[in-house]
Amino acid sequence: MKIRFYNAKILTLNEEEKFEVVEGELWTKDNLIAYIGQGKENKEEKWDRQIDAKGNLLMPGFKNAHTHTAMTFLRSFADDLPLQSWLYESVFPREGQLTEDDIYWLDILGIMEYLTSGVTSNFDMYFFPEKNAKASIDCGFRTVQTSGLNNFGGTIEQLEEHYNIVNDMGELSSFILGFHAEYTTSKELMEGVASLAEKYHSPVFLHNAETALEVKECKERWGMTPTQLTDSLGMYQYGGGGYHCVHMEDADFEIFKKRGLTAVTNPASNLKLASGVAPIKRYLDEGIALAIGTDGPASNNCLDMFREMFLTTALAKVRENDAACVPAEDVLYMATTAGAKCMGLDDCDRLAVGKKADIVMIDLQQPNMQPENNTVKNIVYSGSKSNVALTMVNGKVLYEAGKFDIGFEPSEIYAKANAVIGRMK
Amino acid sequence: MKIRFYNAKILTLNEEEKFEVVEGELWTKDNLIAYIGQGKENKEEKWDRQIDAKGNLLMPGFKNAHTHTAMTFLRSFADDLPLQSWLYESVFPREGQLTEDDIYWLDILGIMEYLTSGVTSNFDMYFFPEKNAKASIDCGFRTVQTSGLNNFGGTIEQLEEHYNIVNDMGELSSFILGFHAEYTTSKELMEGVASLAEKYHSPVFLHNAETALEVKECKERWGMTPTQLTDSLGMYQYGGGGYHCVHMEDADFEIFKKRGLTAVTNPASNLKLASGVAPIKRYLDEGIALAIGTDGPASNNCLDMFREMFLTTALAKVRENDAACVPAEDVLYMATTAGAKCMGLDDCDRLAVGKKADIVMIDLQQPNMQPENNTVKNIVYSGSKSNVALTMVNGKVLYEAGKFDIGFEPSEIYAKANAVIGRMK
Repeated sequence: MKIRFYNAKILTLNEEEKFEVVEGELWTKDNLIAYIGQGKENKEEKWDRQIDAKGNLLMPGFKNAHTHTAMTFLRSFADDLPLQSWLYESVFPREGQLTEDDIYWLDILGIMEYLTSGVTSNFDMYFFPEKNAKASIDCGFRTVQTSGLNNFGGTIEQLEEHYNIVNDMGELSSFILGFHAEYTTSKELMEGVASLAEKYHSPVFLHNAETALEVKECKERWGMTPTQLTDSLGMYQYGGGGYHCVHMEDADFEIFKKRGLTAVTNPASNLKLASGVAPIKRYLDEGIALAIGTDGPASNNCLDMFREMFLTTALAKVRENDAACVPAEDVLYMATTAGAKCMGLDDCDRLAVGKKADIVMIDLQQPNMQPENNTVKNIVYSGSKSNVALTMVNGKVLYEAGKFDIGFEPSEIYAKANAVIGRMK
Repeated sequence: MKIRFYNAKILTLNEEEKFEVVEGELWTKDNLIAYIGQGKENKEEKWDRQIDAKGNLLMPGFKNAHTHTAMTFLRSFADDLPLQSWLYESVFPREGQLTEDDIYWLDILGIMEYLTSGVTSNFDMYFFPEKNAKASIDCGFRTVQTSGLNNFGGTIEQLEEHYNIVNDMGELSSFILGFHAEYTTSKELMEGVASLAEKYHSPVFLHNAETALEVKECKERWGMTPTQLTDSLGMYQYGGGGYHCVHMEDADFEIFKKRGLTAVTNPASNLKLASGVAPIKRYLDEGIALAIGTDGPASNNCLDMFREMFLTTALAKVRENDAACVPAEDVLYMATTAGAKCMGLDDCDRLAVGKKADIVMIDLQQPNMQPENNTVKNIVYSGSKSNVALTMVNGKVLYEAGKFDIGFEPSEIYAKANAVIGRMK
């Protein structure tokens, strides 16, 4: 399969890892980017498709670096509630009723939403990892999974099995070690994860310092923060990171630096659940890698990386009382390149020859992208799902002009999702 | 002109001013809503157009209750700068170069963006009010203006002239008294505004308590906050309100209550310029009217009421450490009905027979609106410009399926906007 995009603006990274916009063509061959450069005569080429980008922008797909995709069924089901009643009365009892089959359909609804927002891969934590992977693979979407292992579900043996099975399901599916969080997981289980990390040379991810209460209780239990405790268990010999990372202490930053960990920020969820505002500027100042995720659709309630990007910088500005901090370029890097790196997707981290063809076309001919003073700032401060003209994953166009090509009719997926929650009402 | 929407869900307000979704039809006749109810035989009716809503939602258009529309030319021109350099080095010198003709084209760019976000009227403060009104009228869009009068531009005589002229330009144009802010305006000018308010029985609006510095310096000058000072000048005999209203004291809340003033919140701008987070929950608790605005596109950088709605509730939740506060229903009311009321648009405040036909159709058949657990929560927490299928102002469809019917080609407007800023680079 050979696809030629022409009349395009193309967002690349230069040698200093800074974004640049070049004009010309981008060709894909099968699942890879085959050429980026000036338009050139190619009468010999047999194209399967030629796409006139009409001056619009090709950019790397967004990497949603933390989510629980299948929670789509709980979107707007029980919001505006105190956190504890939301979790214990609304979320947990219904999650317990989910079947493998439910997960499959709820995942596909989430994948559709990712495609509308230019997301080409997600870093997912949820139940039934094989089924989860199958949903992605069937759609042609790329999913990296981690485990939500905790005291109420899962064993180290199962985790190892999932690690091996999901990593063996083809190039759209991979698995990185992890567990739910310190506050839900015994020391024995955490030690088991650390052993597997040592065995497989895998990074480890977990919910870390999402709320002040979580950190306070961890310190009461262990005399250490979640970062310090997990590090003391030898968790990060091969890196990894934390989701949320809102309430951090000086020593935690030191560990993140020393171990090369990534802080995955989830700003919309942190607001909506009243968790706090993460110290993004300090991570940047200390050279700690940052990525961005939506968290699950029950706590957000949407899977929209444009909203997350705006929040990542705008909340930092008000937190630090500094309108100049966390510039747009850094945020776009987090949402694309840095996200890919923390997800083990180094071959999807930018538009360059030989990289995977995970590409979004951004419609610049809409009023919110005009005038064209600065393309990157326009995307981060003013961009919207309505600007996503096309989303390609692994060389295949899965979404274009509002239509999906994932092998399912939207109406079928919506009916399935409504049926799942309908059963539980 | 008679238009029939059928197979629709219709968002109405019940007798307790709570949103309800009814299924059926909505008819417009000329610029008014003529019928809402069950589908019925009407073989006699001669329709100019019949629109199958396909189960999607008709709702009142959003009211953008504070903006500086023509600042579109500065979108993404100079962000990530400290506030003072942004204002004094980037914004002011370029605003000084704007011609009446520039304003016209820059306004139309903003109006296009409003239509993509389901906004059917704006409350605008900028230069050249007649030209500003003409841009709206020519597009078929509804604009309420106030004055940006301050020590550096304008007189009370001019303000009175604008008040009379702009209020006399037809039903799409109106004008409410106002001035820029206490920190830019002499006591004499403010007294002049108060006299005009008395003469014309007009409400008065101004930027109020946007930053902590503004309030501090006002208290140093006058021993009072901006709210207290302006009230002491007799400004609010006929109501009005403030834009931003972030840094408020107890006595200020009392004045807002006593005078029936509206606090217009601008959360994206308040974040991006590091101004702070407004006390939305307290306004609600005290029964003070709230409306929502985008502020201008240079400080936001987009004109998207979906983003503002999410921020209005999400920021309140983290500010109050209360995930239950400021529920979605209240936020949607602010963005529609309450906005209309503070803008003097009581005839555009809801979908009901006899009201102006300022209507948005929301596409519910997109993944971010599924499952349909709660339509209002879906709109506020998960809604996006991509859900705006159609925007009608005053009975005329101005935007539908991504296309504009405003008498201008988008490419022409984009070229004009790029030329304005191009001239100033």
